[in-house]
Amino acid sequence: MANEKEYVKEITPQSEDFSRWYIDTIRKADLMDYTPVRGCIAFKPDGYELWERIQQAMDRRFKETGHRNAYFPMLIPESFLQKEKEHVEGFNPELPWVTEAGGEKLEERLALRPTSETIIGHLYSQWIQSYRDLPVLLNQWANVFRWEKRTLPFLRTSEFLWQEGHTAHATEGEARQETMQMLEIYREVVERELAIPVWKGQKTPSERFAGAVDTFSIEAMMKDGKAVQAGTSHYLGENFAKGFDIQFLDRDNQRKYVHTTSWGTSTRLIGSMIMVHGDDRGLALPPRMSPVQMVMIPVGPAKMREKVMERFDPLYDAFQTAGIRVKADLREETPGWKYNEWEMRGVPVRLEIGPRDVDNNQVILVRRDTGKKVAVSFDGVVQTVRDLLEEIQQNMFEAALRFRNDHSHLHIDTLEDLKAHLADVEKDKGVAGWVLAGWCGDGSCELKIKEETKFTSRNIPFDPPVYKQTCMTCGQKAQHTVWFARAY
Amino acid sequence: MANEKEYVKEITPQSEDFSRWYIDTIRKADLMDYTPVRGCIAFKPDGYELWERIQQAMDRRFKETGHRNAYFPMLIPESFLQKEKEHVEGFNPELPWVTEAGGEKLEERLALRPTSETIIGHLYSQWIQSYRDLPVLLNQWANVFRWEKRTLPFLRTSEFLWQEGHTAHATEGEARQETMQMLEIYREVVERELAIPVWKGQKTPSERFAGAVDTFSIEAMMKDGKAVQAGTSHYLGENFAKGFDIQFLDRDNQRKYVHTTSWGTSTRLIGSMIMVHGDDRGLALPPRMSPVQMVMIPVGPAKMREKVMERFDPLYDAFQTAGIRVKADLREETPGWKYNEWEMRGVPVRLEIGPRDVDNNQVILVRRDTGKKVAVSFDGVVQTVRDLLEEIQQNMFEAALRFRNDHSHLHIDTLEDLKAHLADVEKDKGVAGWVLAGWCGDGSCELKIKEETKFTSRNIPFDPPVYKQTCMTCGQKAQHTVWFARAY
Repeated sequence: MANEKEYVKEITPQSEDFSRWYIDTIRKADLMDYTPVRGCIAFKPDGYELWERIQQAMDRRFKETGHRNAYFPMLIPESFLQKEKEHVEGFNPELPWVTEAGGEKLEERLALRPTSETIIGHLYSQWIQSYRDLPVLLNQWANVFRWEKRTLPFLRTSEFLWQEGHTAHATEGEARQETMQMLEIYREVVERELAIPVWKGQKTPSERFAGAVDTFSIEAMMKDGKAVQAGTSHYLGENFAKGFDIQFLDRDNQRKYVHTTSWGTSTRLIGSMIMVHGDDRGLALPPRMSPVQMVMIPVGPAKMREKVMERFDPLYDAFQTAGIRVKADLREETPGWKYNEWEMRGVPVRLEIGPRDVDNNQVILVRRDTGKKVAVSFDGVVQTVRDLLEEIQQNMFEAALRFRNDHSHLHIDTLEDLKAHLADVEKDKGVAGWVLAGWCGDGSCELKIKEETKFTSRNIPFDPPVYKQTCMTCGQKAQHTVWFARAY
Repeated sequence: MANEKEYVKEITPQSEDFSRWYIDTIRKADLMDYTPVRGCIAFKPDGYELWERIQQAMDRRFKETGHRNAYFPMLIPESFLQKEKEHVEGFNPELPWVTEAGGEKLEERLALRPTSETIIGHLYSQWIQSYRDLPVLLNQWANVFRWEKRTLPFLRTSEFLWQEGHTAHATEGEARQETMQMLEIYREVVERELAIPVWKGQKTPSERFAGAVDTFSIEAMMKDGKAVQAGTSHYLGENFAKGFDIQFLDRDNQRKYVHTTSWGTSTRLIGSMIMVHGDDRGLALPPRMSPVQMVMIPVGPAKMREKVMERFDPLYDAFQTAGIRVKADLREETPGWKYNEWEMRGVPVRLEIGPRDVDNNQVILVRRDTGKKVAVSFDGVVQTVRDLLEEIQQNMFEAALRFRNDHSHLHIDTLEDLKAHLADVEKDKGVAGWVLAGWCGDGSCELKIKEETKFTSRNIPFDPPVYKQTCMTCGQKAQHTVWFARAY
């Protein structure tokens, strides 16, 4: 993550350089800033408020399904990480370590948590004794650390914010049900609130969470055709139960290991939202997430301003009272400057009102998503705006869905065809998109695709648009139908 | 913080050993657990929910007064801490340091934030250019670290959760107004929501925040007579502005340093709530904070249970619908066992209903705060409970206020008298409480009190019950009237 301090004059068009566009957009929209701490960003208020809205949408659903929040230590003793072999191998290269504290060298290094299975596993082993203690359904909102080499604001940073659910169950069946329930909650929040369509599916073994039996994900397509893993839910089996000796006395008087799950979403959802909905004018935010849902701008000559404001002020109050997140822009700048400004910040609706509108008992509403401009009656305008926000929310989801469908290739069936497709795309500076491919289940076939095209398996969708019969790499019988794509 | 894993059978009486009582209470009530990470606790759901309620009460008021949330990196480069001299001296001894990350030794050590003035100061110097950028009104919810030697769950832990507000203003007047505004918000939340009476006042220079011009606090008295600093608000003057070069171009075209403030409250408020309201039966929670506001318990012989439940179930639904946080305890244990259990957990109201109550069209309500038991009509019982919860909230505040007044000594005017008072208290195993004393303003007089009695200055209350004329230590003319107490 280069330190990019220069003032962003214009937003680079997406088609010219998508990464540049992304950075320009988040800086112009004032969502974040770089910091002198390697790979760590500062979340500015408009960026953080997106996270607060995601938190609210998630947290409500976690609680409705019986989960409660808790908080565990951020520092993890080195010996704990080593109790689950795959886990430590997966995370060790990315850990920051505390080695000194309070003026003394520590006897044992403490890792800044990359995830909390180990410390929570240790405590669950003490909290869980009997089947009566189960299930344990906890979630934690916290900062976590993964010392990444290449970082990208929101999408991959050395410190990020997330939630991590950790549950323990008496049986595999219950734990698997939990895993699926949380995946479905993620899908619901991301599709309904963030207006991002996702594929639910299972990760291949090579992409599994370190220490999991099965990992499931929701995967989203960005506007450059790359994939973002937007949330994961893991069935951990008895792996951590054995590593941390989490046993319970069951109804049948047998001591058994619990079955655990974990599931997480993070601030990378902010990055996804930007990359799915943004365009060459900048940010475009779905109404349910946008800090400001509508901006009101008085227009017309200064000498008529008083007449306009007589209508403007009570209207503003009415929107506020109705719970619409409205902002009045009364600055001295020209209307045109303000239009650009708020479009760039992604505000879903702009309301303009000038002297002629007052005469005609109307206001002008302009949609950020389609650019469409309509005059609507002053009467019932609060309800009109409320309906419009709903319509925009829906339309943004559908536009993202259309984009995804347009760039999902269902009939590229061999590695040669994929390479030909990529060559075509390269020539036209187009979007490579995703391919749905058959896979024999052999890791080497998956690896070959990655090595030759940088396409990695995203997930094995539960409900693919078509089922594939042959492995894209070896041509043998396909065991799975898999989404492949380049990924963030 | 010793690792205390043994099962707590009985709660030690407060009069016998208050510290013991505190630990017994929070463990029996299942608010936290010790962890293998030195001085770090796990917040269990009932403990964490208290924090969530405090967060809601604070956050709403922060936003109403124009503040927004943001998030800054947790790791602070060593060179940043050194830019404000007093600041680094104050915090350096307590810092944990990251020295390795991603498999490499770092060139510069990174501290785990003890507070964020430095990293935020650095960013403000880039964000603030003109008077138009001011004021900047931000708050952060975060984990912070202070590697304490002696720790106590919730009150003093190596990692804790808090909020830290950081604002920048064009003038001293504005910044001082902000400092006072936030102190008043703290008072309001702590008194109204946590039912803890506090004294607002100014800290003496020796107790000032490292780097502040003036520190103000709210101070609360625990049931052992000791003080807890429940919140602080600092006017930082130009100290951090100079350390980090935060300058702006003012309307008069002059470059000036901003005036900054910071203010914080933390999870120690949880500990305060427990120590202010708890008693020998365990926890007692004010209704606005309690995760469960009322527990409902069916009583009477098993063969009559069906008849009782016919009334019980719709009643439960009615309370839920009314938004009262109600829990039905239908376990097999005896009513007496349940009564103890829920009293110990601090639930403000218990509702009992048995067959005779059904016949009499009534339920029994028992208050946790007074133990008072009343039969109330089934008709309008939801409103009756709602009123009762309000009454309990009010009564708990008043009881705490009475306790504070009873243990606030306004007429101990010399160090000799204080020592005599402490000797008396020691003999009777009583509560030393606080003394309101005159102080000449000389640090050595303050220090002498501390050395001879362990009483430290809490704050110089804005509105003391009486004004003192002579310094408690030297007998010279008093400049200030100061609360002195032993403190957590």
